[in-house]
Amino acid sequence: MIGIAVLGAGRIGKIHAANVAANPKAKLVAIADPFADAVNPLAERLGTEAMSDCMAAIERPDVDAVVIGTPTDTHVSLLLHAVKLGKAVLCEKPIDLDMAKSEEAAAEVERQNGRVMLAFNRRFDSTFAEMRKAIDAGRIGDVRQVIISSRDPGMPPESYVKTSGGIFRDMTIHDLDIARWLLGEEPVTVTAVGSRLIDPSLRQYDDYDTAMVILQTASGRQAHINNCREAVYGYDQRIEVFGATGMLVQDNLRPTTMRVWTAEATDAREPLLNFFLERYTQAYRAELDAFVDALSDDTEMPTTVRDGVKALRLAECAVESVRTGRAVTV
Amino acid sequence: MIGIAVLGAGRIGKIHAANVAANPKAKLVAIADPFADAVNPLAERLGTEAMSDCMAAIERPDVDAVVIGTPTDTHVSLLLHAVKLGKAVLCEKPIDLDMAKSEEAAAEVERQNGRVMLAFNRRFDSTFAEMRKAIDAGRIGDVRQVIISSRDPGMPPESYVKTSGGIFRDMTIHDLDIARWLLGEEPVTVTAVGSRLIDPSLRQYDDYDTAMVILQTASGRQAHINNCREAVYGYDQRIEVFGATGMLVQDNLRPTTMRVWTAEATDAREPLLNFFLERYTQAYRAELDAFVDALSDDTEMPTTVRDGVKALRLAECAVESVRTGRAVTV
Amino acid sequence: MIGIAVLGAGRIGKIHAANVAANPKAKLVAIADPFADAVNPLAERLGTEAMSDCMAAIERPDVDAVVIGTPTDTHVSLLLHAVKLGKAVLCEKPIDLDMAKSEEAAAEVERQNGRVMLAFNRRFDSTFAEMRKAIDAGRIGDVRQVIISSRDPGMPPESYVKTSGGIFRDMTIHDLDIARWLLGEEPVTVTAVGSRLIDPSLRQYDDYDTAMVILQTASGRQAHINNCREAVYGYDQRIEVFGATGMLVQDNLRPTTMRVWTAEATDAREPLLNFFLERYTQAYRAELDAFVDALSDDTEMPTTVRDGVKALRLAECAVESVRTGRAVTV
Amino acid sequence: MIGIAVLGAGRIGKIHAANVAANPKAKLVAIADPFADAVNPLAERLGTEAMSDCMAAIERPDVDAVVIGTPTDTHVSLLLHAVKLGKAVLCEKPIDLDMAKSEEAAAEVERQNGRVMLAFNRRFDSTFAEMRKAIDAGRIGDVRQVIISSRDPGMPPESYVKTSGGIFRDMTIHDLDIARWLLGEEPVTVTAVGSRLIDPSLRQYDDYDTAMVILQTASGRQAHINNCREAVYGYDQRIEVFGATGMLVQDNLRPTTMRVWTAEATDAREPLLNFFLERYTQAYRAELDAFVDALSDDTEMPTTVRDGVKALRLAECAVESVRTGRAVTV
Repeated sequence: MIGIAVLGAGRIGKIHAANVAANPKAKLVAIADPFADAVNPLAERLGTEAMSDCMAAIERPDVDAVVIGTPTDTHVSLLLHAVKLGKAVLCEKPIDLDMAKSEEAAAEVERQNGRVMLAFNRRFDSTFAEMRKAIDAGRIGDVRQVIISSRDPGMPPESYVKTSGGIFRDMTIHDLDIARWLLGEEPVTVTAVGSRLIDPSLRQYDDYDTAMVILQTASGRQAHINNCREAVYGYDQRIEVFGATGMLVQDNLRPTTMRVWTAEATDAREPLLNFFLERYTQAYRAELDAFVDALSDDTEMPTTVRDGVKALRLAECAVESVRTGRAVTV
Repeated sequence: MIGIAVLGAGRIGKIHAANVAANPKAKLVAIADPFADAVNPLAERLGTEAMSDCMAAIERPDVDAVVIGTPTDTHVSLLLHAVKLGKAVLCEKPIDLDMAKSEEAAAEVERQNGRVMLAFNRRFDSTFAEMRKAIDAGRIGDVRQVIISSRDPGMPPESYVKTSGGIFRDMTIHDLDIARWLLGEEPVTVTAVGSRLIDPSLRQYDDYDTAMVILQTASGRQAHINNCREAVYGYDQRIEVFGATGMLVQDNLRPTTMRVWTAEATDAREPLLNFFLERYTQAYRAELDAFVDALSDDTEMPTTVRDGVKALRLAECAVESVRTGRAVTV
Repeated sequence: MIGIAVLGAGRIGKIHAANVAANPKAKLVAIADPFADAVNPLAERLGTEAMSDCMAAIERPDVDAVVIGTPTDTHVSLLLHAVKLGKAVLCEKPIDLDMAKSEEAAAEVERQNGRVMLAFNRRFDSTFAEMRKAIDAGRIGDVRQVIISSRDPGMPPESYVKTSGGIFRDMTIHDLDIARWLLGEEPVTVTAVGSRLIDPSLRQYDDYDTAMVILQTASGRQAHINNCREAVYGYDQRIEVFGATGMLVQDNLRPTTMRVWTAEATDAREPLLNFFLERYTQAYRAELDAFVDALSDDTEMPTTVRDGVKALRLAECAVESVRTGRAVTV
Repeated sequence: MIGIAVLGAGRIGKIHAANVAANPKAKLVAIADPFADAVNPLAERLGTEAMSDCMAAIERPDVDAVVIGTPTDTHVSLLLHAVKLGKAVLCEKPIDLDMAKSEEAAAEVERQNGRVMLAFNRRFDSTFAEMRKAIDAGRIGDVRQVIISSRDPGMPPESYVKTSGGIFRDMTIHDLDIARWLLGEEPVTVTAVGSRLIDPSLRQYDDYDTAMVILQTASGRQAHINNCREAVYGYDQRIEVFGATGMLVQDNLRPTTMRVWTAEATDAREPLLNFFLERYTQAYRAELDAFVDALSDDTEMPTTVRDGVKALRLAECAVESVRTGRAVTV
């Protein structure tokens, strides 16, 4: 059994804690969060110990690994502390909003041969995983174009926008990781445009609500991402991978397979799953299980801090491309 | 060039006349209908001669073939007159509502080696034809079950209901023909139920608005048909053919491929095509072309009066099954 | 906490036991099965006690409720023993293959006001439940026709066929329950046909591999069921409910939303989920949770032994209809 | 009746000639083409006069309008000759591959108030037209993003590539026109990337086989286009228009609605329609009819030479963007 402490008892910490508790190879040793109102009921419900100090949780001798789901600005220090003590880490994205700090953290982890997995949950969703598997199996030949449509159900609150790092670092970054992963080659140029079609006041934060990106790899493979902070029909997550001998298309996941026919419309499906927590429930579980498997089998981490740095680097390039109107070399 | 006269300038006559005019191997010699107000403008628009007497049209020396689109009770006399004169015939369904009279007509046509095609238009629809072709090509192995969903957009007027022969002879008959054709074997038993869920007053005509049928062939192949006189979402025409190594499914044809996503529903398609004239436009054209091809190539008629008799016989069995609560042997 | 013992450690017992263990309001007190090789590893894995005697498990004072997943011929005695002791029961279908014995068991449970839920798992599947909810909300008006396509992936072994009670009692029965439930009215007549298209040797067991059924209610609502023991493309579960103001259609559930385009075919989906255990994983979980909720909230059982008797009665009628070629009155 | 001469008896001229012949308000007066082998059988089949001299055809007193389907380098001279004589024109795209010459032609047409329609056939396809209508009806609110996937079934022959003007002027130009039309605002910046993933030898023509484009309008609306010269699954034409209150999605048109289920794949559709002549058959017909209607009703031309110039200008910007790696201002 692998002893795991979950750091952070907020929205994402709750999910990780429940998934650790449900994993037969892991033992949820503790949940740590300075906010007692969050951590105490969660720990009680899952039958584990509540702690207020994340550093202390890392240091416990019965803790083999930690899951970091705390606010972004604490990630690097928690992560490096765990690595220094030889503990494995599953860390939420992003490593940090600052590129240089992220780079340094990644370099330090690599220097210490740290066992750190970055939580790119989408890669573990059954459909995403099946697409990657189908590509690897040669079912569509060499990848030529990846098209990602990714839209949130509604604008985040202004308090969030202020500290989010902007649409490219906060939202597009997930799609940039998936684009890298599905292209099978590193992008070498990034072109992006941003618009304020929903909230013009985003100008004060140099931010956008609607964006498009093009990536190109050295061999010429191309990826396109379109994002919008608000889609009235719900959280929209679709992907198309076009290759030399075929194409894979991923539709949205829905709560049921029911279709409705009325005098107004035929063959209509119900609204989409609300947001990422509902859409990627299975993915979060599979991600945690993959982390535990990598530890128990002593195999490579399926995603690394380096992946996080690379996705952030692409987001930085997108920001620069919007600013300069140029294709930015990665 | 094959000289063709169209008999009947009503709804279906108009379609046949236009299709004859558009066929490069045929010449539309005349349109005949006792109602001058119907036939004159139609003939003028298509640049052909208007006649009031259908028998006279058949007898014209420049007429090689006739298309019969007149009221049902005139079909047999026109048909047999044409056959006697050695003219080919494309005749609308049904031959006659009376089983004995239909049998006699078919026997007479066969005695005289008459060249008569019965207008089972659906068989010529591109999707129906593709399904039959896929079965013939062995793509789904031996057929096991055929399921036909066939619903009209709305109740016909009472005046029509009175003389229609009832839902089984008027509406189900089309599906019975398709079931025979897709099963690839003759049904030997017919079981049916009928309900009055829309209009209880149909009881006075011994008629129903909602029906289900099961057919079984000698080897045990099965077909199910469900009908309703009213579907609020439009004219519904779907088929499933399940076989030993696969299944073919036919969806409704629609005017566009557009899908609509809103806050209320996602992936919704537009309403269906209004009714059979719109749904089977291409099929009527292909049917006429097949008739002309059979004449110009001197090949077998793709559908015969005997097919009409057999479909009517199945409809008769369905009526009897509803009345007796028994599986009726054909 | 409700103390629950699971009786039976076979395929279905394993699922129930895991679902009890995962339910936060229940405690898995014991698993009982005479086969030590089945029950011991399962009990160990789930951290509970293994027992060899089902009756003894029922009698434990810490057992408030039992889940019966043993062979069919043991259901009635276990069920009645539990009811006599005032224990609640979730019992697998069927109650018994014998109609009279099932009736007696149901009457006895009702006499004793027993708390017994019959395990009609499909009703708890999210899509099935959403369909029933949509009907109740009036989204399609009064139900007119229900069409159920339900096919197994492959023939069961002969050993199973011998004791299964035949396709109508073993396979169609699930669809008969769903038809009753979706029609919203009791069927009053049953018509059925059976064929041996896969295995002619089924004749020795008076059994069939391919079947079609029509049900009709007193007001005239109609349901059709088509079944086949073998579908090369997998476990096929589709439903259509056609009503006065709309229609609901349920497609198969699949492991991913991926579609594949190649030179041979476009927009193709992957094979279906293997069989009922995979297709209805979520339904089994929701069924167990509904049982526990009914106990903890002291509300009515969502399905009852009476439902089981009614479904079995419809299956008996279908058998008789095939034999006599008549519509059988329920 | 409007007298029309069709200039050019090649692939596209044949289609236009048949559509003129089928239009009840038009008379096909002549078909002109210097290649007797092409023009003579076509004229004979359609019952009209064959001519060898396009200029002479324009000058005929019984010609009110001409349809230009000749090689691109003859478009401008034929077009301007017709306009000078007061004849209406339906001209195939592009006006000319040279931007300056196209601009001059457009200016000349406008100076003379010429009645010239440029043949942007896709706008007349029933699904494209329904999308524009749905946007105009406010069904999805203000447009935010347009995504166009447009791929050809296979590489054109080298002889064609040499003179085509390159992928952006030859292929992307159709999508650029549709993007302008669906955005409802003029793009102000163009960003593009090009790759040689199929045929590296395209480098000698400064051409590409795979391309992506982003357009942005003054208010910030965005469009993305992805193109490839070769899609193994056929001619791929899909569009998504995402707006403030909904989204419209256009799937490919197919010859039938049949879906195939086998042990390998389920719900598969047949291959796509072969190429643009098959995919846009109905659109070519509707385009010609719209031209004739505009003439007979004396209304505005639905598309103009100016539209052609604007699409070509966007293609030029795309070429420049690929070359410079910059967003190019239109």
